[in-house]
Amino acid sequence: MKLLVTNDDGPFSPGLRILADAAKSIGEVVIVVPETPKSATGLGLTLHKPVRVNKLTLEGEQLYLVSGTPSDVIYIAMNVVAGRPDMVLSGVNIGDNLSIQVMLTSGTLGAVLQAAIEGIPGIAFSAAVDEPSELEEPEYKRFVYNAVKAVLQAVAAHGFPEGVDVLNVNFPPVLTDQVVIAAPARNRFSPSVVKRKDPQGRPYYWLYGLPVEAEKGTDVHVVLEEGKIAITPITLSSLIEVKNHRVAKLVEEVAKRLGSPRGG
Amino acid sequence: MKLLVTNDDGPFSPGLRILADAAKSIGEVVIVVPETPKSATGLGLTLHKPVRVNKLTLEGEQLYLVSGTPSDVIYIAMNVVAGRPDMVLSGVNIGDNLSIQVMLTSGTLGAVLQAAIEGIPGIAFSAAVDEPSELEEPEYKRFVYNAVKAVLQAVAAHGFPEGVDVLNVNFPPVLTDQVVIAAPARNRFSPSVVKRKDPQGRPYYWLYGLPVEAEKGTDVHVVLEEGKIAITPITLSSLIEVKNHRVAKLVEEVAKRLGSPRGG
Repeated sequence: MKLLVTNDDGPFSPGLRILADAAKSIGEVVIVVPETPKSATGLGLTLHKPVRVNKLTLEGEQLYLVSGTPSDVIYIAMNVVAGRPDMVLSGVNIGDNLSIQVMLTSGTLGAVLQAAIEGIPGIAFSAAVDEPSELEEPEYKRFVYNAVKAVLQAVAAHGFPEGVDVLNVNFPPVLTDQVVIAAPARNRFSPSVVKRKDPQGRPYYWLYGLPVEAEKGTDVHVVLEEGKIAITPITLSSLIEVKNHRVAKLVEEVAKRLGSPRGG
Repeated sequence: MKLLVTNDDGPFSPGLRILADAAKSIGEVVIVVPETPKSATGLGLTLHKPVRVNKLTLEGEQLYLVSGTPSDVIYIAMNVVAGRPDMVLSGVNIGDNLSIQVMLTSGTLGAVLQAAIEGIPGIAFSAAVDEPSELEEPEYKRFVYNAVKAVLQAVAAHGFPEGVDVLNVNFPPVLTDQVVIAAPARNRFSPSVVKRKDPQGRPYYWLYGLPVEAEKGTDVHVVLEEGKIAITPITLSSLIEVKNHRVAKLVEEVAKRLGSPRGG
């Protein structure tokens, strides 16, 4: 099995090495990552300027670096570096990727969702820690490594679940052997902005998020409150529910209002 | 009704003016846009650097310009400029936003999806033309203006369809009075890369997409082959189908493989 390993934290994230090492237990690994951290870039693509590709050998491991986003990585990996992979693995991200809000904005998820659009299954791994150093703490690192390996070996043994495009796996900040399927919360943060002034006295703004309370039964609650590993399946095609009679009614109303386009 | 009007093409797009003018027929309009074009930024947020907000008066219209992405616009509009809007309108984009692939990568959709996460309904409007000048062609411009107005007035009269988060409206390149609900194609473009060399002889890469054939019944076919207006409803919460027995089986397998985390 040909595995593309990527992330949105760049080549020096300890999570990348954990994922690449675990991935070797089930297949051939190619590592292609953004050359600098690209958190919160979602599925953004670099179309308005060219991207560069460089090679880097890091602790004996060959990496390809792309001067772009995690979604760019998918394009470059498929067309320039390694051909179409059988599966894309992204992470292990420093910080959780819980809730629909965070998933759709996340670069870690962006990479696997972009691959999923091309029909390539993917798994995103994230650890609910604040700093790379927490992921490097030996006991926690071993926990994450073993858990990533358990997921990959289960997929290798039983196949990627049919009808699912992406699996989103989040590790709690505490050690556990409990793993559950979790539906995503809609929100994880309330969208906030703080105003500051630069040395010239001109205002600028920082965007950030304030955590919102986790609803029971959601991925946020499972990982952050219950301390369990959460696996959330994502299916792209179910994003759109076209058989909604209220939409049908609305379209009828629009049609009524649309006179002949030449009549104005 | 308080309406936030935005786009991903920036303040000088003729589509912005068409949308703002049509929106005034149903409510109070605040215009907040990225200061430069931000196509294909998806739901990306600017978290690693501050953003600036400037005012611009353009043809008698007051606009707020944000040095960021369409998703940043939602944060800034809600927190800095105008408070929480009742609805977000994005567009009219120069170029279609058809297929799941394009929708999830699009900045036009990024803005309304980011707002939808906050529970604010949104409508994205896009015209399947290549150049701003095509949208300024008087007869086509009138067609788009009337069609946008028809959609907005239908929504104003009958309410935003319950259970739907976003309506994605695409106009064909030809005049029509036909409008249909359309399910999105999965793909619109195959992910392509071309290699070039800079004057120093070093390689660089352009990412682009080659159109894929439109399947009948999809939004791509409806708009580009049949020349009709397509309306596609998007429901975020249905993105995730957790009741998949194959995923349940996989999670069981992972659990089996996860020994005591301390046991290694």
